[in-house]
Amino acid sequence: VSLRITAIRITPIAVQDPPLLNAVGVHEPFALRSIVEVDTDSGITGIGEAYGDDPTLKELHTAAADLIGLDVFDLNGLRARVAGALDAADAHTTTPLVGAASRAKTLAAVVAAFEVPCLDAQGKAVGRPVVDLLGGPVRTEVPYSAYLFYRWARHPRTSLHEQGRYKEDDWGEALDPEGIVAQARRMVSTYGFGSLKLKGGVFPPEQEIEAVLALRDAFPGHPLRIDPNANWTVPTGRKVAERLAGVLEYLEDPVGGVADMAEVARTTDIPLATNMCVTSMEELPEGIERRAVRIILSDHHFWGGLRATQQLAAVCETFGLGLSMHSNTHLGISLAAMTHLAAAVPGLTYACDTHSPWQHEDVIEPGAIAVRDGAIRVPGGPGLGVTIDRDALGRLHEQYLRCGVRRRDDVAAMRVVHPDWTGERPRW
Amino acid sequence: VSLRITAIRITPIAVQDPPLLNAVGVHEPFALRSIVEVDTDSGITGIGEAYGDDPTLKELHTAAADLIGLDVFDLNGLRARVAGALDAADAHTTTPLVGAASRAKTLAAVVAAFEVPCLDAQGKAVGRPVVDLLGGPVRTEVPYSAYLFYRWARHPRTSLHEQGRYKEDDWGEALDPEGIVAQARRMVSTYGFGSLKLKGGVFPPEQEIEAVLALRDAFPGHPLRIDPNANWTVPTGRKVAERLAGVLEYLEDPVGGVADMAEVARTTDIPLATNMCVTSMEELPEGIERRAVRIILSDHHFWGGLRATQQLAAVCETFGLGLSMHSNTHLGISLAAMTHLAAAVPGLTYACDTHSPWQHEDVIEPGAIAVRDGAIRVPGGPGLGVTIDRDALGRLHEQYLRCGVRRRDDVAAMRVVHPDWTGERPRW
Repeated sequence: VSLRITAIRITPIAVQDPPLLNAVGVHEPFALRSIVEVDTDSGITGIGEAYGDDPTLKELHTAAADLIGLDVFDLNGLRARVAGALDAADAHTTTPLVGAASRAKTLAAVVAAFEVPCLDAQGKAVGRPVVDLLGGPVRTEVPYSAYLFYRWARHPRTSLHEQGRYKEDDWGEALDPEGIVAQARRMVSTYGFGSLKLKGGVFPPEQEIEAVLALRDAFPGHPLRIDPNANWTVPTGRKVAERLAGVLEYLEDPVGGVADMAEVARTTDIPLATNMCVTSMEELPEGIERRAVRIILSDHHFWGGLRATQQLAAVCETFGLGLSMHSNTHLGISLAAMTHLAAAVPGLTYACDTHSPWQHEDVIEPGAIAVRDGAIRVPGGPGLGVTIDRDALGRLHEQYLRCGVRRRDDVAAMRVVHPDWTGERPRW
Repeated sequence: VSLRITAIRITPIAVQDPPLLNAVGVHEPFALRSIVEVDTDSGITGIGEAYGDDPTLKELHTAAADLIGLDVFDLNGLRARVAGALDAADAHTTTPLVGAASRAKTLAAVVAAFEVPCLDAQGKAVGRPVVDLLGGPVRTEVPYSAYLFYRWARHPRTSLHEQGRYKEDDWGEALDPEGIVAQARRMVSTYGFGSLKLKGGVFPPEQEIEAVLALRDAFPGHPLRIDPNANWTVPTGRKVAERLAGVLEYLEDPVGGVADMAEVARTTDIPLATNMCVTSMEELPEGIERRAVRIILSDHHFWGGLRATQQLAAVCETFGLGLSMHSNTHLGISLAAMTHLAAAVPGLTYACDTHSPWQHEDVIEPGAIAVRDGAIRVPGGPGLGVTIDRDALGRLHEQYLRCGVRRRDDVAAMRVVHPDWTGERPRW
């Protein structure tokens, strides 16, 4: 059956997002995504989900124009066409929280945006779930972690609130160990999460150490992680590692850059993990050679897609690196893709991250994929096994048109409250 | 469509093989292969080709018993089941020419033997060539190299000749530079090969250097390679590299082991290639760290299959290593698999090796895949795009039953002529 691409639709959407705090600031009231639909001459349409910021949208449209006629099985051709379409100068990141920009990373992100719909279309054409196209499931359920955030109860009032159409959630604020433990309690009781991850780099390290120790007391046996997004200096990172030895499953990006990560790694037995200093294939050799990290937090959105992430997994296995999965704010199509991928990678043995519980909107029917007992069952397919809710897509696209956000800027969002905020790191 | 394995047939075969000389001895009159057929409950049968020596056959049968019921898309499950089936002590090589034995390598070889038929069945089920299942073709034709051998005109008369049923070929002997150049001339004029590779380690290095220089004079512009299969010491390897600087495309396994290869690599600009000191994922880190090799000669038969070789390719690309493809004596099913794989790997930029011109028998209809202009067109599929010739399979299986060879032994074959031969290396 012919599966040549006849049309591509890229629909930017905005989803309401709570005021989650991190090293560079606070989440804006809206997070951007784009929904990518790839039509083929067989009548089959593959779907995917990508970043929705202006630079990404521009790149997606530029590449899409060159993809008409491509066979959805021809993923090598996809990569070649995208490489040919993109401007040599294209290099940006959607957030500084995922490391330095490079053209290779931009290329990887754009390829990923179309690879997932191509795999979805392949699966629909052959009547198989995407996980089967990736080598078959090594697990039928993929464990996810609770992603704990320091947060405000609600966003500061701005024009973005659109006169009451913004639905604040009921999680309330979490600004100290008690707040984090309470948040974790609700996460665990609602979703059954095992691993607990605290987004740190928000308060002085002593306070965040206290929060981790409070989690350990409240949730004995639950693997714990903290991620300050490189907001610490090497001495601070070392000090925290010393204080949390025996407590953490892994320590994520305590400091910035391979050189400093290696300095911290030298003095601790806690495995260091990263989705900042090694976020592309070309950054792997130095990271490995300097023994800077022991766990890579993969993310198909910026590693080049599901198959490219499997190649990353092969490198990790070869060099004895652990593998887990990073999350940015995403919706159900990406969650399905992440789950198919994680199910097919034997070495992905750490629970994956997801922001899913923080979103109350989704583009798939009948709503967000359920997390039960801390895990998500691999969708049965064919393809990704999820369907776009056209009404929801229209609503979220309208929200995109009205919300005014066109590029993620956690620093600006923090300046609404703290006008002198810079978000410069390392802060401690 | 369900594609669960219902039966597996493993048919050992013997093909007549000319007296090609190498570092450890000479090819026996018969080379062993096995043809693997995997039936599924959909009625589709996938085919593949693997080693045919006794230890491999035992392992294939052991594993096959545990593969009934497996979905041919479940390649992760294939690996897990094979790992479970094999004895922990299983570790052998089909020839010392491909490096040290390990259980991981045995596992990889057995997985490969079934992975190819599974991919063939997948392709037949979805109506796609195997190359499409591997990410699509980056090239429609795969370049192969001329594999030049020092050789005798015919095998010494032994009981294996079966009273005249053995068909000697008409290539004649090649025991000096003139013989090698004449052989290359016929290879190039018949098949159009570009790259020329001399199997060395047979005569004193000075003579082999002369042969390479004669090839350079006779075939200006043709990339040249020599492979003495680790039959040289480090000083000899360095000396040859010095003499052939600017002449060779790459120097293959001049010496044995990563440590000695690194010693030779330190003093030459010629890229060193290997299918001996790094032949498994677990040997890659040391090989990379010690900068022992710049080109890996992949071989899906012992690297774990087509998808595993793509993972090797990802490691090579990540670490800036070149990639080519090694050959043992094989028939048309393997040649098809090699070609699909090579077509799907962007970084496989060196012409692949093949023994194909040395075989006058094949198991596929209508006979061996044609090499034209030094390249093979990727079969159109579905699956591998080749069909078993049942008559030929029966004939070659009968030949297996009669020939008496059960395990490749180039040393013993040489002892027929030189009773004191040991095949010990390094000889020079």
